[in-house]
Amino acid sequence: MRKYKGSSKLMLQPRSTQEVSQILDYCNSRCLAVVPQGGNTGLVGGSIPVHDEVIINIGSMNNILSFDKVSGILVCEAGCILENLISFLDNEGYIMPLDLGAKGSCQIGGNVSTNAGGLRLLRYGSLHGSVLGLEVVLANGTVLDMLGTLRKDNTGYDLKHLFIGSEGSLGIVTKVSILTPPKLSSVNLAFLACEDYLSCQKILLEAKRKLGEILSAFEFLDINAMDLVLKHIDGLRDPLPSSKHNFYVLIETTGSMESHDKEKLEAFLVQAIESELLTDGVVAQDINQASSFWRIREGVPEALLKEGATYKYDLSLPPEKMYDLVEEMRGRLGTTSNVVAYGHLGDGNLHLNISTQQYDDSILAKIEPFVYEWTSKQRGSISAEHGIGLMKASKIHYSKSAETVQVMAAIKKVLDPNGILNPYKVLPTSVLSQSGRHQPNKD
Amino acid sequence: MRKYKGSSKLMLQPRSTQEVSQILDYCNSRCLAVVPQGGNTGLVGGSIPVHDEVIINIGSMNNILSFDKVSGILVCEAGCILENLISFLDNEGYIMPLDLGAKGSCQIGGNVSTNAGGLRLLRYGSLHGSVLGLEVVLANGTVLDMLGTLRKDNTGYDLKHLFIGSEGSLGIVTKVSILTPPKLSSVNLAFLACEDYLSCQKILLEAKRKLGEILSAFEFLDINAMDLVLKHIDGLRDPLPSSKHNFYVLIETTGSMESHDKEKLEAFLVQAIESELLTDGVVAQDINQASSFWRIREGVPEALLKEGATYKYDLSLPPEKMYDLVEEMRGRLGTTSNVVAYGHLGDGNLHLNISTQQYDDSILAKIEPFVYEWTSKQRGSISAEHGIGLMKASKIHYSKSAETVQVMAAIKKVLDPNGILNPYKVLPTSVLSQSGRHQPNKD
Repeated sequence: MRKYKGSSKLMLQPRSTQEVSQILDYCNSRCLAVVPQGGNTGLVGGSIPVHDEVIINIGSMNNILSFDKVSGILVCEAGCILENLISFLDNEGYIMPLDLGAKGSCQIGGNVSTNAGGLRLLRYGSLHGSVLGLEVVLANGTVLDMLGTLRKDNTGYDLKHLFIGSEGSLGIVTKVSILTPPKLSSVNLAFLACEDYLSCQKILLEAKRKLGEILSAFEFLDINAMDLVLKHIDGLRDPLPSSKHNFYVLIETTGSMESHDKEKLEAFLVQAIESELLTDGVVAQDINQASSFWRIREGVPEALLKEGATYKYDLSLPPEKMYDLVEEMRGRLGTTSNVVAYGHLGDGNLHLNISTQQYDDSILAKIEPFVYEWTSKQRGSISAEHGIGLMKASKIHYSKSAETVQVMAAIKKVLDPNGILNPYKVLPTSVLSQSGRHQPNKD
Repeated sequence: MRKYKGSSKLMLQPRSTQEVSQILDYCNSRCLAVVPQGGNTGLVGGSIPVHDEVIINIGSMNNILSFDKVSGILVCEAGCILENLISFLDNEGYIMPLDLGAKGSCQIGGNVSTNAGGLRLLRYGSLHGSVLGLEVVLANGTVLDMLGTLRKDNTGYDLKHLFIGSEGSLGIVTKVSILTPPKLSSVNLAFLACEDYLSCQKILLEAKRKLGEILSAFEFLDINAMDLVLKHIDGLRDPLPSSKHNFYVLIETTGSMESHDKEKLEAFLVQAIESELLTDGVVAQDINQASSFWRIREGVPEALLKEGATYKYDLSLPPEKMYDLVEEMRGRLGTTSNVVAYGHLGDGNLHLNISTQQYDDSILAKIEPFVYEWTSKQRGSISAEHGIGLMKASKIHYSKSAETVQVMAAIKKVLDPNGILNPYKVLPTSVLSQSGRHQPNKD
């Protein structure tokens, strides 16, 4: 699905907020469109130039500016690579509140601009909760200093949230202040099997009750996902080889005292097996086994890539309805495709994948708009983690009301009247009036 | 300081979103100003009519609409009293992510509109993290349905955050969707003494490390606050009577297994005493003792009221600087006043109180603008929890840059072009042009 290709001829790498401001001031006064890139790992083409936009890459702004050991508040430039921040904090006894597969290349400014989710959201919440402050450069070059380092600040409208998840279409994030949680020493991982989806939900509820404060991840994959991973990813073995199961669940705990965590996890598992919610399960005995369990869950996208073509959907749905969509999709597609489901069950986030030999319009016609209409009917989100970008700009109405999209467009026009920031992305062009819409650059 | 008195002649109590919409449509078309009230417990006069504004009280919209037991997501009308929601959730095995002294009268819509903080923020974060969706009626009567029940939804700008903490000046919140944490059975409370403020900070750092996932509150009061409480609040005794201490700290833990929590707390306390961070301490032996400890902390405002006049400030500051302000203030005021400090140390939130016989302009002149300038210099917040309201509208520049306030004003003008919503509040009138500013109602 990485099918986006632009024709930009210019990439700028500013080294300071001042330079970002000068670039935007210049571009805005000449109505030159820009695309900010803060890492380039998107599913929806949010960071790809559509025509000849100027690319602004802030990767050279990668300094850590301050870290407060008492409060755990980190302030850094937006071009810092996520993995570098994770390493820095590790030495200080803290962790980043988000962790992503793309951590080796994605930048914190890009994470903020796309409101990245990932594996730690269940425990530490979204970036709207943990980002404490931002410095943002607006389309006309104005620097908005909202770089507070306070957990509480009720002075006026909390504007920083507009820039979290707006995919660079309202301003370019140049600095980030973020609350980081203390690093806890004890991590456990269980790989479990359930016979049906209802049991997966019941296990989630029990885990929230019994594991409470130490629950840090709750992921699931179905048998189709498991089969694909075992087929395509070298060196992985089925942790529960004695028989096949319809669903697999990964439960991670993170806490401050190993003996306590093990005792809680064991009590939880014993009860879950006694009440027949689980059909099998194993707890990782060391860090190697734990990482091989994680590789199963994280290997699904790679396995799909090796299998052939894939239609990918990243949906938020009420947990109790989530798997109904998977089954309905199987009914619609029959044997033409393999419908593969996995995701962050604890967050209500389904990664739905339809794997086929090759892309085929007749298959696509059976998937869309059905998948969007179904999601919309459940008041779900057609893009849980991956944003709207270019690909879904015309589909935003499946998840947002017309009135809400109108207000978004009004705010876009206030902050970027010439429409130079990441044009054609996020909002459908139909809601932006001519005056607020960018035309391809001409000079 | 409850010195606000308006002259409103009309209070409306709509029973539905539709009625709120009709009221606002009518008022907007006639440029009649309105003040939304969702509870009326503010420190800064945010919910008080200044002239003859129409009061809109949504207390009759108090239905719980849905609760999902697996995800813990509650959807309710904005007029629900916080305490009623707490009771409802208690039966379901969940808690509200916020708890306030005013819970018996404040409404959830008011909590959202003021971005209420309170005692659980340290553990469960701010409402920007836990509110998942809102229904809001705009000034012109347009209903914005953003009432999602999803933990992840990256489809367009996340507009709900504009209404969290904007004190009813951008729209009236009519429905709320909120993520609630599971109720955990084990709660412990320690009442501790430190000789100096540096030790309080070190204890906070140790608590974050050693108590990790079970730490749920970290509050402090100084000797002046303690003396006042013991003098004025009947039936309270000093939990550490053998000697006086300069600082007192309350540490609460909340977890899922009592034996584990007690073991962690004990290990933490033993080490803190050995390393001489603590000079004394006691752990509550039962719920009665725990609530008497909490009454000491929560009794400070009442004790101040009984003592005489008080100048009250609600500040966010970097924890390491926080008490410097208290000491500087004592230096400035000498024996004319008693400077009393307490607050949410774990969140960097200081409640600074200057207690005098009676209000006196010469004392006030020594406090303001000094306290605001000092806070501004530290990049602190002049209103951590209690908002801007009427009283601080002209002081917002101490915590927000001119450019940021300009953008706030631009957004206010987009959403409320006639300036009918809660006029004279939040933003200084100087940044709102004549066209966007409300004049007193004339009909």
